[in-house]
Amino acid sequence: MKKVVTFGEILLRLSPPGYQRFSQANQFDVVYGGGESNVAVSLANYNVPVEFVTRLPENDLGACALMEMRKRAVGTNHIIYGGNRLGIYFLETGAVNRGSKVVYDRANSAMSEIEPGMVDWKTVFQEAQWFHWTGITPAISQGAAAACLEAVKIANAMGLTVSTDLNYRAKLWKHVGDHEEIMTELTSYCDIILGNEEDAEKHFEIQPEGLDVTTQGEAVKADAFLSVCEQMQAKFPRAQKIITTLLGSISASHNS
Amino acid sequence: MKKVVTFGEILLRLSPPGYQRFSQANQFDVVYGGGESNVAVSLANYNVPVEFVTRLPENDLGACALMEMRKRAVGTNHIIYGGNRLGIYFLETGAVNRGSKVVYDRANSAMSEIEPGMVDWKTVFQEAQWFHWTGITPAISQGAAAACLEAVKIANAMGLTVSTDLNYRAKLWKHVGDHEEIMTELTSYCDIILGNEEDAEKHFEIQPEGLDVTTQGEAVKADAFLSVCEQMQAKFPRAQKIITTLLGSISASHNS
Amino acid sequence: MKKVVTFGEILLRLSPPGYQRFSQANQFDVVYGGGESNVAVSLANYNVPVEFVTRLPENDLGACALMEMRKRAVGTNHIIYGGNRLGIYFLETGAVNRGSKVVYDRANSAMSEIEPGMVDWKTVFQEAQWFHWTGITPAISQGAAAACLEAVKIANAMGLTVSTDLNYRAKLWKHVGDHEEIMTELTSYCDIILGNEEDAEKHFEIQPEGLDVTTQGEAVKADAFLSVCEQMQAKFPRAQKIITTLLGSISASHNS
Amino acid sequence: MKKVVTFGEILLRLSPPGYQRFSQANQFDVVYGGGESNVAVSLANYNVPVEFVTRLPENDLGACALMEMRKRAVGTNHIIYGGNRLGIYFLETGAVNRGSKVVYDRANSAMSEIEPGMVDWKTVFQEAQWFHWTGITPAISQGAAAACLEAVKIANAMGLTVSTDLNYRAKLWKHVGDHEEIMTELTSYCDIILGNEEDAEKHFEIQPEGLDVTTQGEAVKADAFLSVCEQMQAKFPRAQKIITTLLGSISASHNS
Amino acid sequence: MKKVVTFGEILLRLSPPGYQRFSQANQFDVVYGGGESNVAVSLANYNVPVEFVTRLPENDLGACALMEMRKRAVGTNHIIYGGNRLGIYFLETGAVNRGSKVVYDRANSAMSEIEPGMVDWKTVFQEAQWFHWTGITPAISQGAAAACLEAVKIANAMGLTVSTDLNYRAKLWKHVGDHEEIMTELTSYCDIILGNEEDAEKHFEIQPEGLDVTTQGEAVKADAFLSVCEQMQAKFPRAQKIITTLLGSISASHNS
Amino acid sequence: MKKVVTFGEILLRLSPPGYQRFSQANQFDVVYGGGESNVAVSLANYNVPVEFVTRLPENDLGACALMEMRKRAVGTNHIIYGGNRLGIYFLETGAVNRGSKVVYDRANSAMSEIEPGMVDWKTVFQEAQWFHWTGITPAISQGAAAACLEAVKIANAMGLTVSTDLNYRAKLWKHVGDHEEIMTELTSYCDIILGNEEDAEKHFEIQPEGLDVTTQGEAVKADAFLSVCEQMQAKFPRAQKIITTLLGSISASHNS
Repeated sequence: MKKVVTFGEILLRLSPPGYQRFSQANQFDVVYGGGESNVAVSLANYNVPVEFVTRLPENDLGACALMEMRKRAVGTNHIIYGGNRLGIYFLETGAVNRGSKVVYDRANSAMSEIEPGMVDWKTVFQEAQWFHWTGITPAISQGAAAACLEAVKIANAMGLTVSTDLNYRAKLWKHVGDHEEIMTELTSYCDIILGNEEDAEKHFEIQPEGLDVTTQGEAVKADAFLSVCEQMQAKFPRAQKIITTLLGSISASHNS
Repeated sequence: MKKVVTFGEILLRLSPPGYQRFSQANQFDVVYGGGESNVAVSLANYNVPVEFVTRLPENDLGACALMEMRKRAVGTNHIIYGGNRLGIYFLETGAVNRGSKVVYDRANSAMSEIEPGMVDWKTVFQEAQWFHWTGITPAISQGAAAACLEAVKIANAMGLTVSTDLNYRAKLWKHVGDHEEIMTELTSYCDIILGNEEDAEKHFEIQPEGLDVTTQGEAVKADAFLSVCEQMQAKFPRAQKIITTLLGSISASHNS
Repeated sequence: MKKVVTFGEILLRLSPPGYQRFSQANQFDVVYGGGESNVAVSLANYNVPVEFVTRLPENDLGACALMEMRKRAVGTNHIIYGGNRLGIYFLETGAVNRGSKVVYDRANSAMSEIEPGMVDWKTVFQEAQWFHWTGITPAISQGAAAACLEAVKIANAMGLTVSTDLNYRAKLWKHVGDHEEIMTELTSYCDIILGNEEDAEKHFEIQPEGLDVTTQGEAVKADAFLSVCEQMQAKFPRAQKIITTLLGSISASHNS
Repeated sequence: MKKVVTFGEILLRLSPPGYQRFSQANQFDVVYGGGESNVAVSLANYNVPVEFVTRLPENDLGACALMEMRKRAVGTNHIIYGGNRLGIYFLETGAVNRGSKVVYDRANSAMSEIEPGMVDWKTVFQEAQWFHWTGITPAISQGAAAACLEAVKIANAMGLTVSTDLNYRAKLWKHVGDHEEIMTELTSYCDIILGNEEDAEKHFEIQPEGLDVTTQGEAVKADAFLSVCEQMQAKFPRAQKIITTLLGSISASHNS
Repeated sequence: MKKVVTFGEILLRLSPPGYQRFSQANQFDVVYGGGESNVAVSLANYNVPVEFVTRLPENDLGACALMEMRKRAVGTNHIIYGGNRLGIYFLETGAVNRGSKVVYDRANSAMSEIEPGMVDWKTVFQEAQWFHWTGITPAISQGAAAACLEAVKIANAMGLTVSTDLNYRAKLWKHVGDHEEIMTELTSYCDIILGNEEDAEKHFEIQPEGLDVTTQGEAVKADAFLSVCEQMQAKFPRAQKIITTLLGSISASHNS
Repeated sequence: MKKVVTFGEILLRLSPPGYQRFSQANQFDVVYGGGESNVAVSLANYNVPVEFVTRLPENDLGACALMEMRKRAVGTNHIIYGGNRLGIYFLETGAVNRGSKVVYDRANSAMSEIEPGMVDWKTVFQEAQWFHWTGITPAISQGAAAACLEAVKIANAMGLTVSTDLNYRAKLWKHVGDHEEIMTELTSYCDIILGNEEDAEKHFEIQPEGLDVTTQGEAVKADAFLSVCEQMQAKFPRAQKIITTLLGSISASHNS
């Protein structure tokens, strides 16, 4: 079986144990992970051969992130090294009347400073049949978006299936200009698109037509869903499958 | 009693518990501190009124650093807020045959982006009689060095005693140009200078004359010490007291 | 903005981690707090200037309680020191079929041995506009009740708003005689009274008239509530506001 | 083999983990123990049948102390119950340049309020051949001293061997009057006395005659030791064995 | 009051803290317990005199299991010693979408190698009035089943009440042949039988007659229940009481 | 660079945290490791390509051991699976006056039940240049010894360098007969032999001739060392290098 390749950032997550607040903790729980690396770990758990591509700093924290991938049987041969730091986020888990809090500290991470040309995608894809990216990666930085574009183009050219999870993250995108343009170009190379109606709206300004969520029935919702799918298919003719979760229900349209 | 003011950076220190290695830890111990804030805490422990000045990010980690100061009875009224992150360093404590490791992640911290004009030193010093800085602060960034110079000049003009702990840190200084020039100007405003022969050499290229550490006796060491002190006094005529630890023994020269 | 002053006891809470039983634990989680100090912390979190008054022992545990207040930005300038111990309670958190357990060990605490004259209330209230106490404080000891009475009288005389949370605690009151008399006098100095129908009944033997909880409708409940409020207003004519939670719903009567 | 009986107090020891200070800890390590109960545990480890007598409060913490004894195979059939609290002490372990700290919170413990007549010593000693007490027990309170005296008298009358470890504790004795008189009477019932020269001096004002520690030789030390032993034997003629550690060396005198 | 005796195995349970997975944990929580020892602990908590019989290895882990029983006031005088290891099981607590996992490692435990003749049941039962065993014990090994049979016969002969909790465990029984025969003989000596319809079916192939769970009413369920009880009573005429939980409701039939 | 292959057992080590005793711990620290796997990890740390061969049970604990190897960049492609359990040992770290304690629970482990023919050594060694085993592996069981013999023969035949660390373990060997014969045959296939004089004596009854440790000088020690080496070389003519640590000093003899 040929490999799946995923591409993204691993962050160090630091969180006070249990329901402690930041101001009460004298220890933080430590986890290394990220959206795309977690997909890679899940595939590896099902014995799918998988390679994770990222950029890690050459320090002990980068090494810990690398070891976590190796431990979980994710291929790490094409990870590249450089930059100054591993991105971090701090998570305080909420309790009864108190929401969770996240403090991001991921600017200037090794991955955010990636540039096209750094990863040798032709070699990466030589033994691969599938490339998966998410909407988080191009949101990290312009360099990450450009590297992602480079990857989808080469993957296309080399005949790999390309999939994306649109995964809109408002906090991240504000740091990168030309958001819609970037996502539209990247998505146009995809064979399979996952997303929900918020992703469609925030990334591409595609809105369900004629939908009134609160008062109308199931039939109308189905119409609205069809409307989003049709607009997506019109915008991304290459996509064979668009898998959308609309208002909590999962639907798929096949571009036969 | 009028206050002592110290000025520097608070870092978040994250370290695996006990003698665990980074790659073995799933928790990190959490401590907020720094050279100048630790001096402030020590003074507060002896009931000396003390004010700590720094720049903290307006997030939960900045708030934790602030709370640590308040808890220890250090004045925090003149701390300024802004920037994006609290500086971090990771510490792995060494065991029998294994050295300790430090991974710095302090670039782009709130304090490293401080600039002259941000702190209202005239107000800070209004109820103060003493200003203390260390060689770590100007090494953080050119902005921090400039803010420190601003502080010593105003402290001088307002009649405060100014002291410094030269505290040479090779790793930090490489990020800031004009090292010797900066330290020489800053030190020239000091009434009291603490340091050892390494500080004198690395900051000011002052070397003990005629010292041969391994073979010569106590008398020769004393001569070498005198030589360093004399060179320091010649370079910094303002200083009333130069307290030097030479080869493990502490000595003080008074500029009567 | 002038300050709010709260008055009460800080206890050391010791509890087995998670759902461990006392007999299974070889560690206890440590928290310093109390009803009135928690109110002070909440106000400080909203940037309301607040001063907490209590009596702490001059030992390391008293110092920890003090540091917790300082850390949270609660004023501690009027805390007084003396006595032999910090009050303690042990809390075992219940699990599915097992209730929580509390073991009190607060007798002979520094705060329980407070006496009128120890706190210089005139100085405390000089920059204050509001004094808040709860029904827990007079229940600690006769001395604490007398000190509380001293405080409300001076607060009244100096024109502060006085509020109370009646907060009936059966376990505590059995140690102090003349319960109703004490609470009646203390409450008579209050401008704002918070409490529920249990507080009204246990402190003042005020019962909702004509209430039959199980069978009767909302209208009857409202009548009953009115009845409690009217009795409270008759008993405490000074109070401008009586805020009562009756049978789970919150209501307020204004003494216009 | 008939039993050994020891008599004393079990305290709850609470200490910050590792080298944390009280003000840094959000957990305390929990240990239940005491001088005389530790002797009982040691004997039980060597399969000596042993019974520990104390007074415990009837709450969950008293139960934990009881369980610790049972777990270690120490007999608990003659422990009596009553009083309000288990005595506590807080221990902060010192590090390099910082001494350990102890905060005692043992006043008003169940054991400190023991009185003669509470323990049925005749039943306790029925199957015993040895009674051991230490100088800590009479120092707890006058009641504890009186109960100890009651015990040694009955033990004597019933033919048990009575031993004591004099174990002078300055902090405790200041709470109990007539110190020398109490200890002299208690010790006069002992067959075996353990102690060092500090115990002899602080309890009985017995000083080594003609000793000059810093300048004199081993022979003189031996003389001094003999002098202490002779004075002890003269004072306590009943004692068959006086085991003294003098200046670090252990010696024993037999009253043949 | 004469004693209750229970007989079974204590296992060491090792589980990752909280909701950690095995592969995330660098610590395991430690608990010593088992079905029959837990019954003994519960009885001891209600001050019922109780003796627990098992076989423990003579190593530190066997000693820990013993201490846990002693701590909880369970009699341990008739525990026997030998064999090589304490049985272990590893438990990973499930979270939201993930089931709990158990890894058994109990083969070749000291208790699994018990044989008839090892326990001196006549002495054990001398001061006892009740013997309780469960369906787990004979499932451990043929030796354990034979020792259990030996026990119920002697208990019968000496006039003790014998009770059992049938407690079918599929995973365990596959290691022991002649399952139904063994359980039938053991149960035939019982005065009181606890179990549910699964136990009746799996141990004795007794099925509720005429039961159709999904569609029929309460009356039919009662008939089915009666049918199970009647079959059980027919099979085990000695039993005075058969307590069955059928389909979630508890019922008891008395053999008057 | 061709690979190094090591062969041995990974155990689960469970130890009370810090200096806690088994009987005080309610958590155990968890580490997966063993002599030969630790050698593999060290080589991997120096970027030497290395493959570790063992037999692991197909359960979650076997998976954890596997993940630890993968994490550390040790090749795991030739690990075989089967058997029932991962071997365990319990370690209590000693403190001041108390030695460390080890409780082994490794009987019937997956590795102890390995047999010749299970590992496909020809494939394992295809890309390897070096095979390393230790005296621990043949001591585990007769099957492990036979599998080790199979490995050294094939390694020899395929031209790999074979090395051993003799590593005598008294506790283990008593379970395997024909100890000297097994070790002699295994060692006869080795190119490089590491060991000390105890290994030489316990494995092969080779003793330093004419050595009197306490009274004789360095020259005599050197003679004794030569004597051991000469006897080893005579017994194992194939060995090119015998590296011996004698009485604390390391020496090597080359069989040129």
